[in-house]
Amino acid sequence: MILIADNIRITNRAIEKAIDEFDPQPIREMTKRCESAGAEAIDINSGPLNRDPEKKMEFLVESIQDVTDLPLLIDTTNSKALEAGLRASKNKTIINGFSLEPVKLKSILPLAEKFDADIIGYLLYPNSHVPPDGPQRLNVAVELFSEYKKAGLTNEHLIIDPIVAPLIWQDGNSQDMEMLSVIRTLPELLGFDVRTIGGLSNLTAGKGDRGKKLLMEETYLPMLLEAGLSMVLMDVFHEKTMRAARACRALMSPKVFSWEEV
Amino acid sequence: MILIADNIRITNRAIEKAIDEFDPQPIREMTKRCESAGAEAIDINSGPLNRDPEKKMEFLVESIQDVTDLPLLIDTTNSKALEAGLRASKNKTIINGFSLEPVKLKSILPLAEKFDADIIGYLLYPNSHVPPDGPQRLNVAVELFSEYKKAGLTNEHLIIDPIVAPLIWQDGNSQDMEMLSVIRTLPELLGFDVRTIGGLSNLTAGKGDRGKKLLMEETYLPMLLEAGLSMVLMDVFHEKTMRAARACRALMSPKVFSWEEV
Repeated sequence: MILIADNIRITNRAIEKAIDEFDPQPIREMTKRCESAGAEAIDINSGPLNRDPEKKMEFLVESIQDVTDLPLLIDTTNSKALEAGLRASKNKTIINGFSLEPVKLKSILPLAEKFDADIIGYLLYPNSHVPPDGPQRLNVAVELFSEYKKAGLTNEHLIIDPIVAPLIWQDGNSQDMEMLSVIRTLPELLGFDVRTIGGLSNLTAGKGDRGKKLLMEETYLPMLLEAGLSMVLMDVFHEKTMRAARACRALMSPKVFSWEEV
Repeated sequence: MILIADNIRITNRAIEKAIDEFDPQPIREMTKRCESAGAEAIDINSGPLNRDPEKKMEFLVESIQDVTDLPLLIDTTNSKALEAGLRASKNKTIINGFSLEPVKLKSILPLAEKFDADIIGYLLYPNSHVPPDGPQRLNVAVELFSEYKKAGLTNEHLIIDPIVAPLIWQDGNSQDMEMLSVIRTLPELLGFDVRTIGGLSNLTAGKGDRGKKLLMEETYLPMLLEAGLSMVLMDVFHEKTMRAARACRALMSPKVFSWEEV
């Protein structure tokens, strides 16, 4: 699996300020910290970037690329910002992402073909609501894949995000357990070895004790990875969760186990 | 799942001494500590008890029952000791256990019928070697179940131990990953909802850094439980592993998730 840092996000005040002031230094620093912590790709969660979206996304991509060759994920609903980011990027770049929402099908999905880029498809209803269970998520996956194919894309560019449900939702934990079957079922359902991605921080969104939140993330992560999740979006500064990820890798590796790798 | 303490074992010097001297106090103390730590059953790993096996097992069972009503597992290869333990026990008691080894089929398996007790069957070859992969374990399961049925027992008394492989074995981690499919496949293979048990401490048997060992156990446990393991034999004094088990329970519970239960 690939561990993706979700740390570069507009909801972080320092990042927000750096973007507003076009100050690359905090972005570069954060990127370097993510890479040192073990990130294998960097998600750029910029929010919609209402003012100067193109200039700001270009600035973000360039600031990050100043210090790393890691793949990037451009995580915004603003198709203008997305396109500017894809244009500015030299690193491998993934579009994050589209769904059955008509505006996304129209303005975001075509960018994958235009830039020959991987793209993440969320298992959400056209109104952006989360399907309530596993079978509904699978129905959405079939529709999403049909729209994806209509856009003329080859299978290998698709990455599916079945949506980790926050535990505080009324049936969040049941949805998260069903998500494991969704991950296991998708390749057979779609007829190819489709990659999947999950946002681990979603699990513990909302209020709650930090120690308990980390515990739940560390506990759910091995289940997700064993189910076959290809990419995890996570706070790479959570050292214990990163250790759990490395422990999973050592367990699941086809290589001979070595205590050195834990 | 049920969390079973593997702490009462002859390899613990204090326990060995208490047995030799027929001193119930250390056994009672350890039992109380296990129950406080969250144990839901107590495994009595007495070893073969070569001298005075019956008297010693009776002493062990009685000392433990002095302070707890938890179910017991009698974990010895000595059928005389086993029978004495079953006779002495008032608590629900599980025989741990039999395998295809001829002496066990002959002298241990019949005790399940005699005492109307649950019995654990290990997925081992008749020579007690561990099958090298998942399919071989499943073959052994079919043979084991056939011997079990020949002994006239009803399905619901059987608990299968597919054998957690130590990571330091040459392909230990691959075997442990395949064990997850074995756990998932057994109910369909045997045609009923057979229970399974696994010894978590086996995973990290041998040399290794204690912190890393605990990390591997905490990481493997969610995979085992998500696969459907019914019972875990573990060191209940490993507080972090117990917390991981409780986190799994909260995740997998059909009840509404609550941070209070983590």
